[in-house]
Amino acid sequence: MSSIYHGSIIVSIFGQSHADAVGVTIDGLPAGFPIDLAALQTFLQRRAPGKNDWSTARNEPDLPEVLCGLKDGRTCGAPLTAIIRNTDTHPGDYAQMSFIPRPGHADYTAYVKYGGAEDRSGGGHFSGRLTAPLCIAGGICLQLLAASGITIRARICSIGSVRDDSAFLCSVAEKRFPTVSDDAGRRMQAEIAKAKSDQDSVGGVIECIADGVPAGLGEPMFSGAENVISRAVFAIPAVKGIEFGVGFAAAAMRGSENNDAFALEQDRVVTLTNNCGGILGGITTGMPVVFRTAVKPTPSIARPQRSVRLDTMEETELRITGRHDPCVVPRAVPCVEAAAAIALCDLLLESRKREVPKR
Amino acid sequence: MSSIYHGSIIVSIFGQSHADAVGVTIDGLPAGFPIDLAALQTFLQRRAPGKNDWSTARNEPDLPEVLCGLKDGRTCGAPLTAIIRNTDTHPGDYAQMSFIPRPGHADYTAYVKYGGAEDRSGGGHFSGRLTAPLCIAGGICLQLLAASGITIRARICSIGSVRDDSAFLCSVAEKRFPTVSDDAGRRMQAEIAKAKSDQDSVGGVIECIADGVPAGLGEPMFSGAENVISRAVFAIPAVKGIEFGVGFAAAAMRGSENNDAFALEQDRVVTLTNNCGGILGGITTGMPVVFRTAVKPTPSIARPQRSVRLDTMEETELRITGRHDPCVVPRAVPCVEAAAAIALCDLLLESRKREVPKR
Amino acid sequence: MSSIYHGSIIVSIFGQSHADAVGVTIDGLPAGFPIDLAALQTFLQRRAPGKNDWSTARNEPDLPEVLCGLKDGRTCGAPLTAIIRNTDTHPGDYAQMSFIPRPGHADYTAYVKYGGAEDRSGGGHFSGRLTAPLCIAGGICLQLLAASGITIRARICSIGSVRDDSAFLCSVAEKRFPTVSDDAGRRMQAEIAKAKSDQDSVGGVIECIADGVPAGLGEPMFSGAENVISRAVFAIPAVKGIEFGVGFAAAAMRGSENNDAFALEQDRVVTLTNNCGGILGGITTGMPVVFRTAVKPTPSIARPQRSVRLDTMEETELRITGRHDPCVVPRAVPCVEAAAAIALCDLLLESRKREVPKR
Amino acid sequence: MSSIYHGSIIVSIFGQSHADAVGVTIDGLPAGFPIDLAALQTFLQRRAPGKNDWSTARNEPDLPEVLCGLKDGRTCGAPLTAIIRNTDTHPGDYAQMSFIPRPGHADYTAYVKYGGAEDRSGGGHFSGRLTAPLCIAGGICLQLLAASGITIRARICSIGSVRDDSAFLCSVAEKRFPTVSDDAGRRMQAEIAKAKSDQDSVGGVIECIADGVPAGLGEPMFSGAENVISRAVFAIPAVKGIEFGVGFAAAAMRGSENNDAFALEQDRVVTLTNNCGGILGGITTGMPVVFRTAVKPTPSIARPQRSVRLDTMEETELRITGRHDPCVVPRAVPCVEAAAAIALCDLLLESRKREVPKR
Repeated sequence: MSSIYHGSIIVSIFGQSHADAVGVTIDGLPAGFPIDLAALQTFLQRRAPGKNDWSTARNEPDLPEVLCGLKDGRTCGAPLTAIIRNTDTHPGDYAQMSFIPRPGHADYTAYVKYGGAEDRSGGGHFSGRLTAPLCIAGGICLQLLAASGITIRARICSIGSVRDDSAFLCSVAEKRFPTVSDDAGRRMQAEIAKAKSDQDSVGGVIECIADGVPAGLGEPMFSGAENVISRAVFAIPAVKGIEFGVGFAAAAMRGSENNDAFALEQDRVVTLTNNCGGILGGITTGMPVVFRTAVKPTPSIARPQRSVRLDTMEETELRITGRHDPCVVPRAVPCVEAAAAIALCDLLLESRKREVPKR
Repeated sequence: MSSIYHGSIIVSIFGQSHADAVGVTIDGLPAGFPIDLAALQTFLQRRAPGKNDWSTARNEPDLPEVLCGLKDGRTCGAPLTAIIRNTDTHPGDYAQMSFIPRPGHADYTAYVKYGGAEDRSGGGHFSGRLTAPLCIAGGICLQLLAASGITIRARICSIGSVRDDSAFLCSVAEKRFPTVSDDAGRRMQAEIAKAKSDQDSVGGVIECIADGVPAGLGEPMFSGAENVISRAVFAIPAVKGIEFGVGFAAAAMRGSENNDAFALEQDRVVTLTNNCGGILGGITTGMPVVFRTAVKPTPSIARPQRSVRLDTMEETELRITGRHDPCVVPRAVPCVEAAAAIALCDLLLESRKREVPKR
Repeated sequence: MSSIYHGSIIVSIFGQSHADAVGVTIDGLPAGFPIDLAALQTFLQRRAPGKNDWSTARNEPDLPEVLCGLKDGRTCGAPLTAIIRNTDTHPGDYAQMSFIPRPGHADYTAYVKYGGAEDRSGGGHFSGRLTAPLCIAGGICLQLLAASGITIRARICSIGSVRDDSAFLCSVAEKRFPTVSDDAGRRMQAEIAKAKSDQDSVGGVIECIADGVPAGLGEPMFSGAENVISRAVFAIPAVKGIEFGVGFAAAAMRGSENNDAFALEQDRVVTLTNNCGGILGGITTGMPVVFRTAVKPTPSIARPQRSVRLDTMEETELRITGRHDPCVVPRAVPCVEAAAAIALCDLLLESRKREVPKR
Repeated sequence: MSSIYHGSIIVSIFGQSHADAVGVTIDGLPAGFPIDLAALQTFLQRRAPGKNDWSTARNEPDLPEVLCGLKDGRTCGAPLTAIIRNTDTHPGDYAQMSFIPRPGHADYTAYVKYGGAEDRSGGGHFSGRLTAPLCIAGGICLQLLAASGITIRARICSIGSVRDDSAFLCSVAEKRFPTVSDDAGRRMQAEIAKAKSDQDSVGGVIECIADGVPAGLGEPMFSGAENVISRAVFAIPAVKGIEFGVGFAAAAMRGSENNDAFALEQDRVVTLTNNCGGILGGITTGMPVVFRTAVKPTPSIARPQRSVRLDTMEETELRITGRHDPCVVPRAVPCVEAAAAIALCDLLLESRKREVPKR
């Protein structure tokens, strides 16, 4: 069913780019948990546009308004709904494209699916703007996880052909451009600037690590940790691939290389390597959960592109004007953290149900 | 929730490797659809073990017994349940490993999750044997999709470092070793044989293409085609990554390269390339749906491995005896088709609900 | 999961009586359907308080604000969210009761469930006010059903000991007090007035009929028409019972009396009676769907009542002040229609998935 | 979705009356819980047919075969599947009725829904035989609940016009005819015998009480205790109504009579009456959960009935031969317990997720 993450928590995202608001309802949060709204706002700022060279000039405060679900700053057991008003909308920017679907966007597929009734302005429900409510939900889940000792951090691994192969040992959330190596970060920014000056865009890879995840989360087969994390992460519009641990590299390895040997570390079972990304049989091992995700280059580019007029069914050329990020990867970093947080929060709460009664 | 694919169809998989049976219930199939049980059996044979160098010697007919859900060979609207009896079981093979988790397997994570109550024999519910009922469900979905003009085919792209870069233009299902290039296939088999003689195993990459998928399938955000296909494909035990279209390669591309231009082909909207893998905004474009999935090397290898005795909490060395595939990739090929078929069948049936009533 | 109706449409209700807003998100509506907001408002007015002797003096316009999901007045495929701001709130009225649960209300059970973190003001998430978003969702579903030829109407059968046994042949929605017999209606109003003057309250029975329901809606066992209608109707706070067709009276009947004989009416199969309430085996027969539901007397009464101080754990006496309906039955009538509409809309959309592909 | 109870546990029921088997898969049971199969068998015997005057002569051992999900007698975390083979089937008994739907049965509605592809033999998936797997699932849930201190018991309140108004203070499960008053039970049996000799059938009312239910189970609105119990109980074929606590009688009461005053009993909050049936706002109060359910008279009666030949679309008379219970109420008693157990087990496990992490 569309736009709902349905698990032990239910995250229901609504809104269109140029509707009155975007927002989210989170159902199933434990009651009595204090939400730090200032910390949430700081988290959302990492996704917010309009602050630098690589993101759009759209300037919105993106202040979430919590309509319900809190009482004296704590979750009260009722669903929590928060909205963000859309204020800085310029529907006119999109008028030209009304019947000419933009390559790489959901314009055409939404047109087919909804028979032309879809809201096309700014991408409608398919806009990257919908990652704002995703981040609200994810930001709250991050706080819940943190209280259980689980932290999640993501970083940029590559932009175009520029890679940062540094080990990812601690969060880079406070950085303006979240790479481990500042030098690599500078070269990545240059790559973005070059694409922009070429009226083009670039993609990249984001790595995400969850530390402190207890062993035993995840259900077999269809609700394993990989299944549910994937399900959440592919909600981010530009994501086209995901891999856990060494991922695709495992396909080229021998079992003797890829298997993670078990050992003891102060009476705790650990693995000496973590090629499996902290997940075996869909269930967490107690080691960090590690995944990487491929983000495609922004489909909106200023260069002319071939497309089709759907009203007259003629081939044509399209020129996209308006504001667009030459690279969405930096802004996607907190979105990946948010998606991972939603999935892990689901897994954590789900695991609580399994305790066996005494007999 | 464990072991259930829950969408417009519900696929509930049950069984353990050495329990009386494994099986599956499929709920939500349209009524009156004729199931070709012989074709289903042929499909299941592609997954069956014991026929060649690269799979285990376990020799079971794997004949599914349909307990209910059919009437005169057609679906009758009631849930369809099919089971496969486990006959060729040797629980003794696994006795030694009872408290020493095998690296790369779910032994340890299941132990933590289920507190030692899990069935360890042969991997229990986490055994590759559970892909047999997955293939029963997928095989039925393949027939349903075929009746709607959708066909699904998969092939081996690589085994270890050996790749087959041939274009994938038609099914290779009838081949004993499902590669497009027979020469590449021979080299891959040699790679597997070498790993086996080294008491080791290898992984590989499988590509899957769905042709004839109509435009407009998939729901936004959490139930897009990528989300649901991923959710189904990660149910296959050894899968560690998935990518759609050009996938991770998109991360290194410019938008002008990666975007798929729209054009007309006899009044039908097509894209001139298919880098997006037939999916934009989570919704199918009408072009082939294309994805690749990384399969890790079989964790069971004859070489000694480091592990831990969980009863005494001592580090130890483990030697795995018994029968094991040096490479599960060939047998995973129909499993990937099956998982894709389940997901696409879900998306197809889901799309039928959206028709608007007249006013 | 709390506050979500999860079927072929998903209705997610949020808000607390004295939070900033109450509201609802409806996901899964067909796209391109025109919503008549004026008609919706008229429907909501039937539930609105403050207009007569039997309902509270709370005076709120109850104007729903549609935040998203519409484009040019039509559903656009994206989730539809509507909120109603809470403006006329007097949290002070409830201060005294903070730790003394009101008999018949959810105060105590919410306190146990949420550990004291629940929002108690005005009943919080358990307030009758939450039926406003239920009616928004139901009102939209009513329009969708009407476009498919299905109409739903409810009426008051009894208030306290006063009954209206008239046949229910057409809607009484336009009536200020929705009974078939105006005389019975007057006596019921007198019954309510008498209870009010006694500082007491009364309950009643509501009957609901859905006409035009095609045969074949409903799934066997857990998702039959009775199951899903019950699930929706028990979302209305004061409902304590439901019966379909002749319901409990069937328990005292012989099979020969209760069975509805089949006959032909211009080539259409009908039943000569409708004791089954239009549902056999959980599936609709094509005859009107009929059910009755028991509404308990408003628990808030001005008379002193015995209760317990939960902070000090002492028995005490409670006097409820503030505004309360002496009888919620009249306002519950549109709520019952709304709940039935949500359930039937789910069943209708669900049935569309079942078409079998040709072979 | 058909035939699946989907909550914190998932109960998936499959089979047709004359298919190879009926059965059930239960997913989500805590691991390590010992299942007492002998006690389960004893429970199932209470539903089994063929032992007395009021049930059919069908003689089947109804021994469930547990295919998987147990290891050494304990749940192992994997889905538990049990089947019962159908052995004593006489499809021929139903041949005459193939195209003449039996009044009061699902024959006609299934025909419309499944387009004639349904399995009609013995009622197919709509047969009362499907309550056998319901009782397997419920019997297991009863054991799980018992280990948490929750017991469930049901009794016959009335058969036709004969009532047993005795207080229901302890279980009557061991009785051949489960009434509290043996005298009333004898008169009820006479009522059944009379109906049988009249080639007719009778209905009745069953009351069910769950003791030891902790306060705080149930979610607001759509997943309250009343909603989920109703959803489960209406899975029993002949049920046409349900009421909680005083139920429909509440509609005729004053608030001052119906409200249950709170009081203290050794530092525990109790209510002095239990008119609400142990549920307020959808959440359990800690008092016994009480509900009654109306069971219609068996639709299969030997008397001739009016119906329609669906193949030729002619009105006709139908005579049902074969074996049928003149009253299903006694056999429905354990089914009601089973349905209640499934719902309460769901609520109990669901409540475990809500614990708030420390901060």
